Amino acid sequence: MTSHGRLAGVIPPLCTPLTPDGRVDETSLDRLVDHLIEGGVHGLFVLGTTGEVSGLTDAQRELVVAATVARAAGRLPVLAGAIDTGTDRVVDQARRAAAAGADAVVVTAPFYAATHPEEIRRHFAEVAARVDVPVVAYDIPSKVGTKLSPDTVIELATEGAIVAVKDSSGSDVSLRALLSRRSARGLDLSIFTGSELTVDYAIGLGCDGVVPGLGNVDPAGYRLLFDLARAGKVEQARAEQDRLFELFRITTVADRAQRSATSAALGAFKAALVDLGVIAGATLARPGVPLDEAERAEVCALIAEFGPRIGAIVGVGTIGSGSEEPAGQ
Amino acid sequence: MTSHGRLAGVIPPLCTPLTPDGRVDETSLDRLVDHLIEGGVHGLFVLGTTGEVSGLTDAQRELVVAATVARAAGRLPVLAGAIDTGTDRVVDQARRAAAAGADAVVVTAPFYAATHPEEIRRHFAEVAARVDVPVVAYDIPSKVGTKLSPDTVIELATEGAIVAVKDSSGSDVSLRALLSRRSARGLDLSIFTGSELTVDYAIGLGCDGVVPGLGNVDPAGYRLLFDLARAGKVEQARAEQDRLFELFRITTVADRAQRSATSAALGAFKAALVDLGVIAGATLARPGVPLDEAERAEVCALIAEFGPRIGAIVGVGTIGSGSEEPAGQ
Amino acid sequence: MTSHGRLAGVIPPLCTPLTPDGRVDETSLDRLVDHLIEGGVHGLFVLGTTGEVSGLTDAQRELVVAATVARAAGRLPVLAGAIDTGTDRVVDQARRAAAAGADAVVVTAPFYAATHPEEIRRHFAEVAARVDVPVVAYDIPSKVGTKLSPDTVIELATEGAIVAVKDSSGSDVSLRALLSRRSARGLDLSIFTGSELTVDYAIGLGCDGVVPGLGNVDPAGYRLLFDLARAGKVEQARAEQDRLFELFRITTVADRAQRSATSAALGAFKAALVDLGVIAGATLARPGVPLDEAERAEVCALIAEFGPRIGAIVGVGTIGSGSEEPAGQ
Amino acid sequence: MTSHGRLAGVIPPLCTPLTPDGRVDETSLDRLVDHLIEGGVHGLFVLGTTGEVSGLTDAQRELVVAATVARAAGRLPVLAGAIDTGTDRVVDQARRAAAAGADAVVVTAPFYAATHPEEIRRHFAEVAARVDVPVVAYDIPSKVGTKLSPDTVIELATEGAIVAVKDSSGSDVSLRALLSRRSARGLDLSIFTGSELTVDYAIGLGCDGVVPGLGNVDPAGYRLLFDLARAGKVEQARAEQDRLFELFRITTVADRAQRSATSAALGAFKAALVDLGVIAGATLARPGVPLDEAERAEVCALIAEFGPRIGAIVGVGTIGSGSEEPAGQ
Repeated sequence: MTSHGRLAGVIPPLCTPLTPDGRVDETSLDRLVDHLIEGGVHGLFVLGTTGEVSGLTDAQRELVVAATVARAAGRLPVLAGAIDTGTDRVVDQARRAAAAGADAVVVTAPFYAATHPEEIRRHFAEVAARVDVPVVAYDIPSKVGTKLSPDTVIELATEGAIVAVKDSSGSDVSLRALLSRRSARGLDLSIFTGSELTVDYAIGLGCDGVVPGLGNVDPAGYRLLFDLARAGKVEQARAEQDRLFELFRITTVADRAQRSATSAALGAFKAALVDLGVIAGATLARPGVPLDEAERAEVCALIAEFGPRIGAIVGVGTIGSGSEEPAGQ
Repeated sequence: MTSHGRLAGVIPPLCTPLTPDGRVDETSLDRLVDHLIEGGVHGLFVLGTTGEVSGLTDAQRELVVAATVARAAGRLPVLAGAIDTGTDRVVDQARRAAAAGADAVVVTAPFYAATHPEEIRRHFAEVAARVDVPVVAYDIPSKVGTKLSPDTVIELATEGAIVAVKDSSGSDVSLRALLSRRSARGLDLSIFTGSELTVDYAIGLGCDGVVPGLGNVDPAGYRLLFDLARAGKVEQARAEQDRLFELFRITTVADRAQRSATSAALGAFKAALVDLGVIAGATLARPGVPLDEAERAEVCALIAEFGPRIGAIVGVGTIGSGSEEPAGQ
Repeated sequence: MTSHGRLAGVIPPLCTPLTPDGRVDETSLDRLVDHLIEGGVHGLFVLGTTGEVSGLTDAQRELVVAATVARAAGRLPVLAGAIDTGTDRVVDQARRAAAAGADAVVVTAPFYAATHPEEIRRHFAEVAARVDVPVVAYDIPSKVGTKLSPDTVIELATEGAIVAVKDSSGSDVSLRALLSRRSARGLDLSIFTGSELTVDYAIGLGCDGVVPGLGNVDPAGYRLLFDLARAGKVEQARAEQDRLFELFRITTVADRAQRSATSAALGAFKAALVDLGVIAGATLARPGVPLDEAERAEVCALIAEFGPRIGAIVGVGTIGSGSEEPAGQ
Repeated sequence: MTSHGRLAGVIPPLCTPLTPDGRVDETSLDRLVDHLIEGGVHGLFVLGTTGEVSGLTDAQRELVVAATVARAAGRLPVLAGAIDTGTDRVVDQARRAAAAGADAVVVTAPFYAATHPEEIRRHFAEVAARVDVPVVAYDIPSKVGTKLSPDTVIELATEGAIVAVKDSSGSDVSLRALLSRRSARGLDLSIFTGSELTVDYAIGLGCDGVVPGLGNVDPAGYRLLFDLARAGKVEQARAEQDRLFELFRITTVADRAQRSATSAALGAFKAALVDLGVIAGATLARPGVPLDEAERAEVCALIAEFGPRIGAIVGVGTIGSGSEEPAGQ
């Protein structure tokens, strides 16, 4: 549905590397893009929650999209979050992202003001009508306060307003309802799970892909997991998911008395990427509080124990060959 | 604390009049500014929740500030919301508002991403340090998901990062704690309530003013209520508050099966302003669903019954004379 | 409406004194009853949230009602919580309380299972139809998960199902709506606030009384506050409320990393009562974690600073004379 | 761990059949027990949320346990909810259930009063120490307001306070954490999912069983699903889960403007059981509002379309033979 075809596969939500004074670190971003592509991912999603979109200025957002698109150089689709409070603001964000080269935009329900299902439906329909690239619906009630109902998603897909949905709601009932209704109606809608700890299950169930924050740290692991799950190798997929489950413990080492859950998780991803030599520093967008020395040492220890499948990339390559790239179907 | 002195009095959060196709209706905005000033308010607050800030583009926001400042022409202070998700974004919004002429900016806790009290403190301190106009803290947990604790507010005031707080949390315990600690420390902090239905109480308790959404419709009523409460005329203040309580019922006439609570309330304010001849149309920012014909008729009936104190302005003037204008102390 | 007449005045929710091994300490309970009556309260409310009703067995509940009724000896009405999850269970609790001598029962919305306004209405109507003593509605959404809407309360009062409501919802809008509709309909409904920190306001607004947990510690202070507020002595009432506001700080000295907010508050009330020589020990109902030595010392220090108006009782008596006792109207 | 061995398999939470005037319908209860045993379930769980425990009196609760135990006649274990607000109350409930013959009791975190993890731990430890039958922890934050953390559950299992956990939290991360830590520590803890729509996944992941409300209606379907999932027949298990997913739609046909979600779901289960000839009437415990005529017809239509695997029981029997009964290991 994008110029790359139907969206599918592993599409990690990129961290946004920052310099100590809070500017976008383009060199590190380039390395992160390379790291992910080498890990075998099928697409890149910038300016998501993991990308600290809510802390980046419009200028920074444009820079992130443009730099990522340039580095990806057409090798895989680049999705960009157009995350803002109201319809007209989202249209502005989406147009800027498209102008900077994004292949699709990722849009949540409106937030800050209270919303109603009919207002949510109008929101997506209006954005889709006024933006030139495909729209992906992003269901993330923990951030926006409202769940996208399966009814609304199916209606929007039927009207052609969205080409995909990323379900970060954590509701397995809702996910199952989406899959079941897609089948019943024969809809051409890509369904992604945002739950990085149940990928084996979600893919087995019929999801097209996953948007794993932890995929920044271990893209090859998620690629392997995706390939195994898709191939129906249930036991092997579960073993890989179990390893990634343990690796995910990096997100909870930070002291929550000092910072938010967001800072604890994103700070850990960045600390891990520094440890792996991918990015230069672990600065968070303001007002986030990064991990301290001791906490970063704990992250490194967990990486050493459960760590990224760096050397395993070749092996992964044999499972899913280039011509079968899900995101380019 | 602003160029107009310490903030106090009735400072309504202005509705943003829109044309049927969603552009800012400047003529109506001018009339609304006149209506409020004639009603005796002490300041104007644009780009708040009532101003549908979350649905306006950056261009619209700038236009609203500039037009309001121009029309107010220095007669009273103009506060502008700098409402956005993260610190650097708020700094951008605040600088634009200041450049457009705002006397102060109104800032909430960060939202979308999870936050922690220390991150909230950093947020306000950073915004204050990088913006040239005074900062007013806006405590509105129903929208941003986090309550500003009295501890944080008092700490920020002590550091000089904020000059005022608008408490829309609905927590009387928290409000009382703020007032008590301000006294104990002798802080120069203006405390406003955002609860338009308990103004008599809040002013009696020691609050400096109120930010009443319903004040768009009945500014003279709120001015009278403020003056009565400040003068310790408890019974008369309560009677006026009771009338405004009944008038507030306009916010609940709209069918909530068709729209959000936000649209029901803001749609009613706009419908009332149309009925009063102040603004030209009741269009809401996208994706809001305005009131239908029958609902607007109900709003008009309530206005006829409990309605704005249009003719009472002269009488009001005798209570609080010009030289005692609270916002210009 | 009870055999004592219309409910009004200060009706504290009694703590339940317990022995170290968790049995009801009847001797301490007797002293607490005396302490409250000597403090000038107008009624006693046992088995409320403050009375740790959710931690007491049925046998303990019956004992508490019977012992309190015996000690009160008809001097003032005794209300008893009939707090349980569903309708038939509440009927059982209410009948046992009535059999043990309670003058009225206090009933919440059903909890545990999800409820709907119509189910809540049925619940109260059914309880009232099957119980021989008057029913007081207890609006406490923080515990039962549902707010009693003013519509429901007014409907139940109109049908004669309830004689009073205790509003512990913290919503001033809702409280004001109750008062306004009661007036409009001329209903004989007593309205109590459960917010012990805004009594001056609530009484000024027209509430009939207050159910203050802190009233266990300082009954004379609440009696004085009530009398002052009722007499329209706004400044003096506020000063007394301000003192009680500071005294209320005992509820937050306990370390919340070790216990729940409930244990912190109720543990402080009990520690204060031990300090004042009213009850023998500060044991909480299981599984509550009481305050430790250091925390109890802090409570004592706050009592020394803002402490109960023990010696002031005579003076209080001069304000509200015996023949005007609100609860016996 | 019970006299029947380690708990495992399909253990439906029985509906409680009621007569039109609200008494326990023992004849229908007997038929329901038979229906479930014939369907091949491995245990019976009475007095759970599905059993409307919160609406049943103590006398009704005892009757339900005794009648179920009598009818089961030792053929499979009977678990009983000991659901109440505080520790001592739960001990009372649990002792009564044990005296009435229950093989194990099912206990939630305390509710109504706020709780803290340490208080929750004390609660379970105290109940276990004072009750003679094994304790199953029931994690149901939607009802009690608190999630049992995996840490607490693992600690309680290590101390021998609980033999099993029923996870109705809907959190797949938490479920996975439980399974992973159980393995790491080699604990003898049965882990059940309460999510009836993801059984294939949960069993595949290593769960010991499921507690499906819909299992009242289609016990044989859940038995088949369990057997297929356990045997690693992923595709077949998914197909059966998909059918049960569609059948679950009966829980959402009722008009939510007239009743709670609880009444909508439990009313549908009872309407279905009436339709299948298992129970005599669809009365709900007070104050629940049952389905109306039209809604019951819709339930019947869904049953006709996706309906219970009544005739399939023999076939199911060939998959899991008697000697392999999970609950009797």
